[in-house]
Amino acid sequence: MQSFDLDKTDVSKLKQAISGDNELLKATLAEYHASEIAILFESISSDDQHRIINLLDVETASDVIAEMHEEAHPEELLLQLHPDKRTEIVEELDYDDATDIISQLEEHEQKEILEDLSEDDASSIRNLLSYDEKTAGGLMNTEVIRINLNLTKKDAIAEIIRQSEEIEEFYTVNVVDDNNIFKGIVSLKDIIKAKGNAKITEMVNADVVYVKAETDQEEVAKLISQYNLTSIPVVDDDMHLLGRVTFDDVIDVLEDENTEDFLKISGVSEDEELSGNWIDAVKSRLPWLIINLGTAFLASAVIRQYEDTLSTLKVLSAYMTIIAGMGGNAATQALAVTVRRISLYDLTDDQAYRAVLKEFTVGLINGAVTGLIVLIFAYFFDSNLMLGVVIFMAMTGNLIIAGITGAGIPLVLKRVGIDPAIASSIIITTFTDVFGFLLILGLASKLLL
Amino acid sequence: MQSFDLDKTDVSKLKQAISGDNELLKATLAEYHASEIAILFESISSDDQHRIINLLDVETASDVIAEMHEEAHPEELLLQLHPDKRTEIVEELDYDDATDIISQLEEHEQKEILEDLSEDDASSIRNLLSYDEKTAGGLMNTEVIRINLNLTKKDAIAEIIRQSEEIEEFYTVNVVDDNNIFKGIVSLKDIIKAKGNAKITEMVNADVVYVKAETDQEEVAKLISQYNLTSIPVVDDDMHLLGRVTFDDVIDVLEDENTEDFLKISGVSEDEELSGNWIDAVKSRLPWLIINLGTAFLASAVIRQYEDTLSTLKVLSAYMTIIAGMGGNAATQALAVTVRRISLYDLTDDQAYRAVLKEFTVGLINGAVTGLIVLIFAYFFDSNLMLGVVIFMAMTGNLIIAGITGAGIPLVLKRVGIDPAIASSIIITTFTDVFGFLLILGLASKLLL
Repeated sequence: MQSFDLDKTDVSKLKQAISGDNELLKATLAEYHASEIAILFESISSDDQHRIINLLDVETASDVIAEMHEEAHPEELLLQLHPDKRTEIVEELDYDDATDIISQLEEHEQKEILEDLSEDDASSIRNLLSYDEKTAGGLMNTEVIRINLNLTKKDAIAEIIRQSEEIEEFYTVNVVDDNNIFKGIVSLKDIIKAKGNAKITEMVNADVVYVKAETDQEEVAKLISQYNLTSIPVVDDDMHLLGRVTFDDVIDVLEDENTEDFLKISGVSEDEELSGNWIDAVKSRLPWLIINLGTAFLASAVIRQYEDTLSTLKVLSAYMTIIAGMGGNAATQALAVTVRRISLYDLTDDQAYRAVLKEFTVGLINGAVTGLIVLIFAYFFDSNLMLGVVIFMAMTGNLIIAGITGAGIPLVLKRVGIDPAIASSIIITTFTDVFGFLLILGLASKLLL
Repeated sequence: MQSFDLDKTDVSKLKQAISGDNELLKATLAEYHASEIAILFESISSDDQHRIINLLDVETASDVIAEMHEEAHPEELLLQLHPDKRTEIVEELDYDDATDIISQLEEHEQKEILEDLSEDDASSIRNLLSYDEKTAGGLMNTEVIRINLNLTKKDAIAEIIRQSEEIEEFYTVNVVDDNNIFKGIVSLKDIIKAKGNAKITEMVNADVVYVKAETDQEEVAKLISQYNLTSIPVVDDDMHLLGRVTFDDVIDVLEDENTEDFLKISGVSEDEELSGNWIDAVKSRLPWLIINLGTAFLASAVIRQYEDTLSTLKVLSAYMTIIAGMGGNAATQALAVTVRRISLYDLTDDQAYRAVLKEFTVGLINGAVTGLIVLIFAYFFDSNLMLGVVIFMAMTGNLIIAGITGAGIPLVLKRVGIDPAIASSIIITTFTDVFGFLLILGLASKLLL
């Protein structure tokens, strides 16, 4: 199978099969991977989803539900299924996937699902539900390969084969002592390569990266990405092995964190679902727009102060919007580069200082160049050189302020422990609006009247 | 080792060691992982980098260079090293890492490095250099475990152990026929679990995802993430196995693509290095600001048209900046949600249509609510109800335009094959500025004068 995304032909083929009988639908579904069916689910009705899940064997059905995007609400689909089917599917799911999905439900719905499960499964999932969703504990899967330090090569291989019946994918083998204290990892390759009578304790690599259950997911993602790990062991405070977080969970975390930053910097609440409805969107964005309204009143108060200047020199109205607008965009540029840089790297104080200095220089130059263009325009079009000079000064000044605030505010926020991405363009453009108007109107009233 | 990021204590400890003698420095370095030393390299001089590389054993030195961020310019460090040391390090690097680094150099510098290498290494790297950097071919590593379809379990294990001397990390074993035609993959686990006389052909999984060498890196990243793969095989048009792309390369690709989108939407050229100097930043941002200046002139031309209206009703100046500013921010919100959604999911036409409809509704409601606030303000503060009504209409209209353009423009761009992220806030806010001014000034001149 050389599979790319589900393309239009596939989707229409599948949709046609949905309108046919169960026989045809089943045969068509068999041609697709669970993750492709999960994509299809984003564009079909929940009744059709329900019907398809019932047609699939339990293994594929659980894979489809595990692969569905959070925003497609697999938990709602699960809730609609017949309790027996649902129990089968939940028992087939990896504990971490089951927990992710169940955690989206109301408490009484969670209870309803959990009480149908075997005591073992239910208590494992209940345990995972107790961790904060955004920590290593919330991300981890408790089903890991774990072998005792004292096993020989032969016994270890037998044990790994036995455990791997339950665990489909594994890349490393965790080594523990008799008390389940984590002692390190060993690769399957090293076990195979070892001599027949070698003991695991001779092959174990104790110098490995691991995390505590309460470690923040962003930190977990950074470690997995920095050390190129397929998975990272999770331990409790006493070094008991609790589970592992795998690289594929981390790819999802990275995308989520990126989405959050992307939205926050644009004045959208991080909780807004990208494919949510208009009610969610209004709830998420209106508060920011009302904050923006407050800051806009501030900028307009500056204009009121200079009403006389404006009525004496009418053309100032046309120029002041240019100064403010350019400042806003230059600030957004500096903000984007800085927020992204902070989210990818940890900056030293010295690097932070130099970042602000750099933005000062960039603001000075970009302000002078664009200011000069407007000066020339004002000279030829409005025949007013002095007006051009005022505009030049206001533009340069405002772009310097844009650079310093665009870089400085997120860096200061980071320093005091606040998420730098909340320094959204809405906050930053307040500065460039207020200072832009102050500069052009203040300078004009001093120099031109 | 429970390692988090290199913290301040570590950095100052290492920097102190740098100011000491080689003995101390070597001992201190031994406590750190190559990827931590790579982080340290971001904040020390190139002379110190040079000295440290010479102190490290060749394996660690090559790991450090492989782990350095592109922005820390490992290729420059490599170029400064003594040719013998450099050759040792390059030969130790994985081919894909060596190619990434060498590709950043001028052609004559590339030649200089390559001609010192063994013929085998040089031709492998030359071959990789021929692929576009942003394709599967450009990302792939040619060192993969490959075994013949016809081997027995025992011979296969021996062969894997032999090949794994050269290849440190592998998660799957590729299966080929006598002509190196790719036949599928087999997991180490399945080989171990198989009976003693089983042949690989009985265990091979032929139904696997693979990519062509020219497949775009974004597509490769999507597949690895969608199918939760540790690595994906790369083949040529005749299905010869060329190499593999691993999940850790893909994490880097995802972060790069995210950075690109993040910058583009804010009017920063995708090529700007986050930690680049002011010259790069000016080059990357000034063109966008000059485009912005052009669009700002457009908005200011609208104001000029209504100079008489403005001088008759002076207070309009203060309000029009509120309408334009709110429109710009509402458009940025809709734009961010839409661009991010497009980059994560493929939208059907129907979904795209509903996304624009949703933004229309959001604009209508957010516009009406914030418009009402300003109406009340105008009534009490400026004692002018009709002015308030004009502002209410202009605000609502402008936020509807903001929603439609913020969502519609990136969707249309995507549809016609242009990167939607170039619909930056600079482009979008032109619409909200121009229409904002047109609405408030046009309505005012019709209804208030």
